[in-house]
Amino acid sequence: MAPEATLDRRPASSAASGGDRSSAAGSRHRVVILGAGFGGLSAAKALAKAPVEVTVIDRRNYHLFQPLLYQVAIAGLSPADIAVPIRSILRHQANARVLMGEVEGVDRQAREVFLADGRRIPFDSLIVATGARHAYFGHDEWEPVAPGLKQIDDATGIRRRILLAFERAEMATAEKARERLLTFAIVGAGPTGVELAGALAELAKKALAADFRAIDPREARILLVEAAERPLTSFPDHLSVKATTQLHKLGVELLLGAKVTRCEEAGIEIEDSRGRRFIPAATVIWAAGVQASPAARWLGIAGDRAGRVAVTPHLNLPDDPRIFVIGDTALCLGANGKPLPGVAPVAKQQGGYVARYILRALAGRSSKPFAYFNYGNLATIGRRAAVADLGWMQMSGTLAWLFWGGVHIFFLIGFRNRIFVLLSWLWAYFLFHSGARLITGDDND
Amino acid sequence: MAPEATLDRRPASSAASGGDRSSAAGSRHRVVILGAGFGGLSAAKALAKAPVEVTVIDRRNYHLFQPLLYQVAIAGLSPADIAVPIRSILRHQANARVLMGEVEGVDRQAREVFLADGRRIPFDSLIVATGARHAYFGHDEWEPVAPGLKQIDDATGIRRRILLAFERAEMATAEKARERLLTFAIVGAGPTGVELAGALAELAKKALAADFRAIDPREARILLVEAAERPLTSFPDHLSVKATTQLHKLGVELLLGAKVTRCEEAGIEIEDSRGRRFIPAATVIWAAGVQASPAARWLGIAGDRAGRVAVTPHLNLPDDPRIFVIGDTALCLGANGKPLPGVAPVAKQQGGYVARYILRALAGRSSKPFAYFNYGNLATIGRRAAVADLGWMQMSGTLAWLFWGGVHIFFLIGFRNRIFVLLSWLWAYFLFHSGARLITGDDND
Repeated sequence: MAPEATLDRRPASSAASGGDRSSAAGSRHRVVILGAGFGGLSAAKALAKAPVEVTVIDRRNYHLFQPLLYQVAIAGLSPADIAVPIRSILRHQANARVLMGEVEGVDRQAREVFLADGRRIPFDSLIVATGARHAYFGHDEWEPVAPGLKQIDDATGIRRRILLAFERAEMATAEKARERLLTFAIVGAGPTGVELAGALAELAKKALAADFRAIDPREARILLVEAAERPLTSFPDHLSVKATTQLHKLGVELLLGAKVTRCEEAGIEIEDSRGRRFIPAATVIWAAGVQASPAARWLGIAGDRAGRVAVTPHLNLPDDPRIFVIGDTALCLGANGKPLPGVAPVAKQQGGYVARYILRALAGRSSKPFAYFNYGNLATIGRRAAVADLGWMQMSGTLAWLFWGGVHIFFLIGFRNRIFVLLSWLWAYFLFHSGARLITGDDND
Repeated sequence: MAPEATLDRRPASSAASGGDRSSAAGSRHRVVILGAGFGGLSAAKALAKAPVEVTVIDRRNYHLFQPLLYQVAIAGLSPADIAVPIRSILRHQANARVLMGEVEGVDRQAREVFLADGRRIPFDSLIVATGARHAYFGHDEWEPVAPGLKQIDDATGIRRRILLAFERAEMATAEKARERLLTFAIVGAGPTGVELAGALAELAKKALAADFRAIDPREARILLVEAAERPLTSFPDHLSVKATTQLHKLGVELLLGAKVTRCEEAGIEIEDSRGRRFIPAATVIWAAGVQASPAARWLGIAGDRAGRVAVTPHLNLPDDPRIFVIGDTALCLGANGKPLPGVAPVAKQQGGYVARYILRALAGRSSKPFAYFNYGNLATIGRRAAVADLGWMQMSGTLAWLFWGGVHIFFLIGFRNRIFVLLSWLWAYFLFHSGARLITGDDND
């Protein structure tokens, strides 16, 4: 492969050498990491004992365990259960500092990152791991109506919408208005959409059932709209079938082969084999499609359709081996020639790989290309319902659900969070009470 | 006392009779309760088994345990730990319904409450328990600079300010700017101010100590500004002295006999016996002075200087015995002739009293005037530091602190919250980790 060959032919020490700028701490190799998600943090941690200077820059002060974010949206967990201050995670890593700031651009000549507040952060190696946002396929005007779920504020906003819809339905006097308020449409039946739909169905049918007087929350309609012909297209066929059965059991209505053609206050319009139709729905949640962070723009190069930056098999730029792009922001081809999916394990493995690559380069050694090891795919659907594809085995139902829970608690950062999430789940499991049903924030949407 | 005599001479059944409007459920006596704080909820619960129809109206969907709100502001607890959906609390109370809505006014002739969305809620008896907001003594322009602490969104906003101040100090290049960012001024040394100051000092000096590289959070200055000559003026003198010692031990600077004369972005100006001076401070928190909810305006009567509505010894209006005002919104004189303080136990006892009053009146019986039983005053200052005045005994230090913790956990509504708060505290106590250090919300103040 050409880019790899090119890279390997450069002297490794030049690709990663210190250079003309010296920092306060002297001439140690400066690794700047943009983004403290799974990829960025795993890179930072893999550099813990190394003789380099690590700077982690993030817009937020916390690392977010995104796989459980939907549980904040459906009021099952509190934000603090799934987020940990980046500083706490790195507090004992003496060679790392954390800066809160918004990236505006990268000066590749001067080897500096520009922040929105005017600061310039010099680097010798740069790791871009700034993730992705939800995307609306050219319909950004849908965002206010159909929010996506990537950040904590997205999740508490969606929680507010969901809970307010029930509150307003309780007060509605017209039957039509009540029906619209009790219709929830989730767009996209990937893992996030499926998880949201299942959890929302349980919220309505169990946790809220006894709370209202004028409405019966069990009558809420939960629609899961998917353009493909089956949910969870990243899973094998027969697990999609299992997921479909489990969703039906929870009362979720699956609309397959259905494209969303319009989103507005009143509801959504979909198009499927039966033609176009409008479904009145007060709450629409977007779980379809993502767009990479604007890293391509910062780096002054062209991204692919989803905004991702194409990288070499060593995860750096073909023409600039000291700049690495990983995680959801990178377009990295897997062994099968297809792009690796935007999931946490890919980002984590890439972060570790890049850290090791840099250290080997500093020691004058070259590295093998990155190879992703896929431990499997997991999605939960509801109480004792999940699907798991581990490659060498597939599971569904209770066993997959327990496995899903175990894996997620295991990978949560912070022992405190593990304990508190486990307790919240046990509590919810035995008592059908969800813990965080607060309508916060002050807007009236 | 005149109003009481007047009231007692009215036939009790007329004070609480049904009347011209009949509700959907027939002719049961309709009790409408405005506000689901301590007062409103205790009234609702005391009516649980009674043959009346209870409607609880609140702007929020949750009951908030305000005595622990400062812990959300200093990132010790999550909002969901101290708030419970009102519907959950009343879910098994068949005669109660909950409406989320903003009160606009009361039509005393038609006996209806107007809500902002145009709904009108008829009542036979009305209990106004809508609490208080912080007040700025005619300087409302200070609010954006010096936020108060009454609601969850206030607390998460203050949490954001506090944590952002440390983040910005870490990045500051000028010494002056860093000093200002690391100066926190709390105005008002009542229980809330003292608790905030103590907890903030511990956050800076313990929990955050190892998290930063460019600054030492232990150098943060925490100022507690109080116009009186001692903190905790509602406590006996010698407990104020103990509190002062404990605050000093935590490194809090007490500025006594100091009036705030200006609040702005850059800091606060205070005036004391040494004259006026300006203290640069990036974070100012307002814990002085409250203003009752606009109940007087809704009822078309004059409130006192703090907006409170004067009530008879039976807690109703002199000229309208079917309208009760309780809690922070009521001006109710205690046995000593002074107004009862705006604390949870007063509101709770008043709520229970009014419920019993209404039921007795419906049965044709009169009630004795309300009498407040004071179980004591509590304030915590920090780790193993608190003061308690139980009347028959006074405590300070570790014993008072344990007592404070026990009482607060006991009175939290919801077993789940008790468990989770207890666990959070044990965790923080043994590990000096605080659990909810998230900067959320999207504004940049």
